[in-house]
Amino acid sequence: MLINIDPILSPEVLYTLRAMGHGDKLILCDSNFPAYSMNSRVHRIDGVDTAKAAKAIFSIFPLDSFIKYPVVRMQIDDNPEELNDVHKELNNIMHEVAGTNWEMGSIERFKFYDEAKNAFAIITTNETRPFGCFILTKGVIKPDGSVWVLNK
Amino acid sequence: MLINIDPILSPEVLYTLRAMGHGDKLILCDSNFPAYSMNSRVHRIDGVDTAKAAKAIFSIFPLDSFIKYPVVRMQIDDNPEELNDVHKELNNIMHEVAGTNWEMGSIERFKFYDEAKNAFAIITTNETRPFGCFILTKGVIKPDGSVWVLNK
Repeated sequence: MLINIDPILSPEVLYTLRAMGHGDKLILCDSNFPAYSMNSRVHRIDGVDTAKAAKAIFSIFPLDSFIKYPVVRMQIDDNPEELNDVHKELNNIMHEVAGTNWEMGSIERFKFYDEAKNAFAIITTNETRPFGCFILTKGVIKPDGSVWVLNK
Repeated sequence: MLINIDPILSPEVLYTLRAMGHGDKLILCDSNFPAYSMNSRVHRIDGVDTAKAAKAIFSIFPLDSFIKYPVVRMQIDDNPEELNDVHKELNNIMHEVAGTNWEMGSIERFKFYDEAKNAFAIITTNETRPFGCFILTKGVIKPDGSVWVLNK
């Protein structure tokens, strides 16, 4: 284990989060998502749900302030405006851990798949609630060590 | 880059530090040390000296309180009691970053080589001052997230 780093973040996950640069996209998906057929770099965080994984990730992963929605949820089929419990939880955790200035966008399921194929990596959890899938875009750490928050 | 993690810690170094468990040993060595002939897992942090590397490592790497000397310096040949500038710097950084309760031990150079062969990994820097080589033993993080400090 390491000091002030959530132990659910494995060596492989830490490697990937550190290797990502500005604008690279990370998929955080539920356990039904076809992760392995979408991307060659898949990490498992079994035993946790989306909320727990998101808390750990947001604690070290800077969000991208150069785009409007650095966090994007998968839309529910035929009901794109509805936020289910997982979506609401993720939104709350984003505000709690990363700050209240970040906004969550949404994307239609098949467009999400296209994003997943081009993402840097996918983290899959044991989240069982449907549509519990998100795109997180990595931001910038400034020379002083703080997250670059542009016009927010 | 990641939030509150020193950017000199590469994906590979983060991977290794996270993969290590209690009692595993990390060698932090100078640029003359024969790292690659001692151990199959060598990470380079070029461009920094021992002090800078140690600051970054100590910020996330818990020291082992189950042994007397979780940090051990390489003794100067024929002058085992002398602490050179690198040794003094490392000792100060250990106290500044990890806490004042930790003690630095010492070991003869050829015994150090034996330890390096059996270590989990070696991190080599651009430190050019001689005998700037150290053994760091990994400790334990408690369930509450703090470093286990036993009888110190």
